[in-house]
Amino acid sequence: MPLPPVPMVEIHRGPLAESLHVGHAVICDGTGQIVEAWGDPDKLVLPRSSAKMIQALPLVASGAAAARHLAEPQLALACASHEGAPLHVTAVNAWLEDLGLTDDDLRCGAEPSRDKALRFQMIRDEETPCQVHNNCSGKHAGFLTLTQHLQAGPEYVDPDHAVQIAVRDAFETVTDQSSPFFGIDGCSAPNYATTMHGMARAMAWFATAGQRSDALSRAGAQLVQAMIAFPDYVAGDGRACTLLMRAANEPVAIKTGAEGYFIAILPQRGLGIALKVVDGATRASNCAIAAILVKLGVLDPAHPDVNTFLIPEIRNWRGLLTGEIRPAPSFP
Amino acid sequence: MPLPPVPMVEIHRGPLAESLHVGHAVICDGTGQIVEAWGDPDKLVLPRSSAKMIQALPLVASGAAAARHLAEPQLALACASHEGAPLHVTAVNAWLEDLGLTDDDLRCGAEPSRDKALRFQMIRDEETPCQVHNNCSGKHAGFLTLTQHLQAGPEYVDPDHAVQIAVRDAFETVTDQSSPFFGIDGCSAPNYATTMHGMARAMAWFATAGQRSDALSRAGAQLVQAMIAFPDYVAGDGRACTLLMRAANEPVAIKTGAEGYFIAILPQRGLGIALKVVDGATRASNCAIAAILVKLGVLDPAHPDVNTFLIPEIRNWRGLLTGEIRPAPSFP
Repeated sequence: MPLPPVPMVEIHRGPLAESLHVGHAVICDGTGQIVEAWGDPDKLVLPRSSAKMIQALPLVASGAAAARHLAEPQLALACASHEGAPLHVTAVNAWLEDLGLTDDDLRCGAEPSRDKALRFQMIRDEETPCQVHNNCSGKHAGFLTLTQHLQAGPEYVDPDHAVQIAVRDAFETVTDQSSPFFGIDGCSAPNYATTMHGMARAMAWFATAGQRSDALSRAGAQLVQAMIAFPDYVAGDGRACTLLMRAANEPVAIKTGAEGYFIAILPQRGLGIALKVVDGATRASNCAIAAILVKLGVLDPAHPDVNTFLIPEIRNWRGLLTGEIRPAPSFP
Repeated sequence: MPLPPVPMVEIHRGPLAESLHVGHAVICDGTGQIVEAWGDPDKLVLPRSSAKMIQALPLVASGAAAARHLAEPQLALACASHEGAPLHVTAVNAWLEDLGLTDDDLRCGAEPSRDKALRFQMIRDEETPCQVHNNCSGKHAGFLTLTQHLQAGPEYVDPDHAVQIAVRDAFETVTDQSSPFFGIDGCSAPNYATTMHGMARAMAWFATAGQRSDALSRAGAQLVQAMIAFPDYVAGDGRACTLLMRAANEPVAIKTGAEGYFIAILPQRGLGIALKVVDGATRASNCAIAAILVKLGVLDPAHPDVNTFLIPEIRNWRGLLTGEIRPAPSFP
């Protein structure tokens, strides 16, 4: 029998815990051993965008990033699910121009900007969203950079393309297990499956990468450093990844993924964390990752930007406080 | 030990059931007996907007609706979580004008229209959303109509206001149990708590209301008839309530609520259904209510508008099919 998921996050309204989110989470150390776990470490998952720093490994390890003189903000963007705010759009457009490419060379699909001011302005100007506005456009600019370096064909999201084969190899190396299959992600790239334990092990691999000198580890350390140095590029204004990284008491890389995924990389402790909310809700994964990081002392619950995700208020259309989201009594 | 919720809906991507939604559901007959149940019938819930036809009972039973010559589309609007499309906004504005009132008399709060064309047009015209665009504005127009009829004060969402006392009385009558407390809803009105069994019993009360001649039952039958006759007013284009009511093989009233709630009222069978997805996801409650109604033969799974909610495709930003939502293997 697989271990059941545990209660992680409650939605309160009036005196009632109206809704409940359950999940799995694993903390691993650099040897790959489980330090603490909730639910089932053997649960098979798609880590979605929480795997972006793995998908960016070949870009750096191959030498493509150095050959193109990519700066740290670009490496952070390669690991990002950004808001499509002007900051991100400008940077990715400049990157594409450096490569001699255009929006049409991306394969992530067009997505409306998640930055409200830009989205509203584009509606007013009757502008159509571009692929560069897609939250994954930085990762895809990285894929295109590696594609050029490898002199490979334009369909870089094809699972048989040299870029995705390199990603799968990196994925299996850092999770330390073979991936049984993939799903196609929202941005059309393959997303490789692993276990919760495998993903936490991979994050611990990143957390300890600075202690090793092989090319893949050096690439991992560089990517973690870029995420920590440029949290605005990893997500954006008001987003959990950005605000929690900024609020942390020590350097930490934090990255959300679709369907309730979240990871954290703690270089000072050599620990990696993987978390999956079973029903896929972001409101719950934001709260649960904050709760784990508070328990570890990485985040201060009194910090306003931590409180925003740990115990967010629920307000109604008149602005009245009607409830709150908070960690389940037994979690973590 | 309370009965655990049951797996209801799976989110598939590639070969993996990536996410899972569990829930509670109860089918009751007109005697209040449980015909079939999944999970815990004693689970305490806030039925949220699935209780709107209960909240509209005093409007009709008091004679206020008849005194104001409310037509069936207005009764459907009183039970609606509408899209704030031009159809709804025009009707509620006309209703307010009939009452000699304005948008400022509403207490639901301003909400951007959920109708994309109108929302974009309002952004282009730099218009601010009004309270009439709130998905609950029809219910609130009903509250205002009853307020005038009772010659009560303007703060009609106050739990001590005559309108809300009448709503609570009606709620306890049709659920056939006292309500232990309330939460404040997204529209600022109190939302009374009951059990899953209580809510299913209330829906069976509505389903059999046409067989009784007391004033409250006659009001209930009128509201159900209005919802069935005017499904466009209950929700709107593309919405589950509207499309499933239209697609049904027999007259049925179907109503969503926030946090994964759903109800169905089946007058020809004298059955009422209540459903709660534990994590609050609408994608799951849409699928689960469709699955139950398909099992009962009320909906045809081959009907395109049923299939849209029963087994919705998941497509990515390039329009590629990447997965699907579908009922869990054992459900219902």
